[in-house]
Amino acid sequence: MPRSGAEARRRLQQAALELYREHGFDQTTTAEIAARAGVNERTFFRHFPDKREVLFDGEADLRAALMEAVAEAPDGLQPLDVLLCAFRRAGRILEDNRPFSEPRLQVIAKTPALRERELAKAASLTEAVADALRARGVPERLAGLAAQTGWAAFHHAAQAWIDDPSRSLEAHLSRAFDDLRTLSATMSPAQAAAESGGGRA
Amino acid sequence: MPRSGAEARRRLQQAALELYREHGFDQTTTAEIAARAGVNERTFFRHFPDKREVLFDGEADLRAALMEAVAEAPDGLQPLDVLLCAFRRAGRILEDNRPFSEPRLQVIAKTPALRERELAKAASLTEAVADALRARGVPERLAGLAAQTGWAAFHHAAQAWIDDPSRSLEAHLSRAFDDLRTLSATMSPAQAAAESGGGRA
Repeated sequence: MPRSGAEARRRLQQAALELYREHGFDQTTTAEIAARAGVNERTFFRHFPDKREVLFDGEADLRAALMEAVAEAPDGLQPLDVLLCAFRRAGRILEDNRPFSEPRLQVIAKTPALRERELAKAASLTEAVADALRARGVPERLAGLAAQTGWAAFHHAAQAWIDDPSRSLEAHLSRAFDDLRTLSATMSPAQAAAESGGGRA
Repeated sequence: MPRSGAEARRRLQQAALELYREHGFDQTTTAEIAARAGVNERTFFRHFPDKREVLFDGEADLRAALMEAVAEAPDGLQPLDVLLCAFRRAGRILEDNRPFSEPRLQVIAKTPALRERELAKAASLTEAVADALRARGVPERLAGLAAQTGWAAFHHAAQAWIDDPSRSLEAHLSRAFDDLRTLSATMSPAQAAAESGGGRA
């Protein structure tokens, strides 16, 4: 039996991840997770409300890291540069914990119930990031759009890192933000096009 | 009793939306929705699998409109310009149906269960849009990022339209895409910053 609460928690997470990969999320019970972790089922529920949350334990750390990084980014940085700083810090948390975070992202990507939970968490984190940008003085309207756009690039980079682990997450992140600049730089002005009647499908 | 299936369907959607606004989504039963629509509960389940789906009936139309608009956008347009065309067309569907789509978006925004469903639908639509861009010859890597970024701007514009209905959704959409250009234009190159050690938090 694991001796400390933190150790039991870590073993439950590892056991859940293994079982979800071996048998699939839907086929795995909390009793099986507890058994593999060497604890009883009551201990599982002392740590996690359900078998989805066992894979989302790191959200509080990620949120704290993002908020801190946005608040502490150098003065005068543009919103997306602030977010690149913040996502680099968040990315290092994922990268430092790669033996867990990589299979975790793979399991989530192929399990609709986990994907739904992840999307809800991401939406909540995106709103928190937007608030943190507003607290730095980024105008209301731009803060929300910047947060959603930056999150799209972060999510895209994390997915690319899963598919191509030969590059670091940081490298994928830099590339995603550069791709975003390239994509946007080649856009036509939207309001001007709308006024002249151009660009309508 | 409504005479045709299509009429029953429309009445069920209207009744559901009214009840969700009056009493909240969680407090409303399918029996109550059926009663207000003047049909029995079996008819509800002939049209919808559950009380969440009753608000997502337009997804197939939206998907078809987006796919068609991406495929038909003029040759030579840049990826985000193609998406602006496509989201303008999708926006017109929302705008033409404003008496339903505006309160619908409000109810979704404040109901976590509906928000989760909407996020899952949006993720699926974003993947479809990325595929449609790839079919136009947009490189693999850029297609996914462009779809996610474009969707972020579309979502942002729809939210802004709910909050400020004095401007059209099309005007909000044009502004969101212009804001995206502005945000990206002021970014520093990410890979160069990473290589020189700059930009790290």
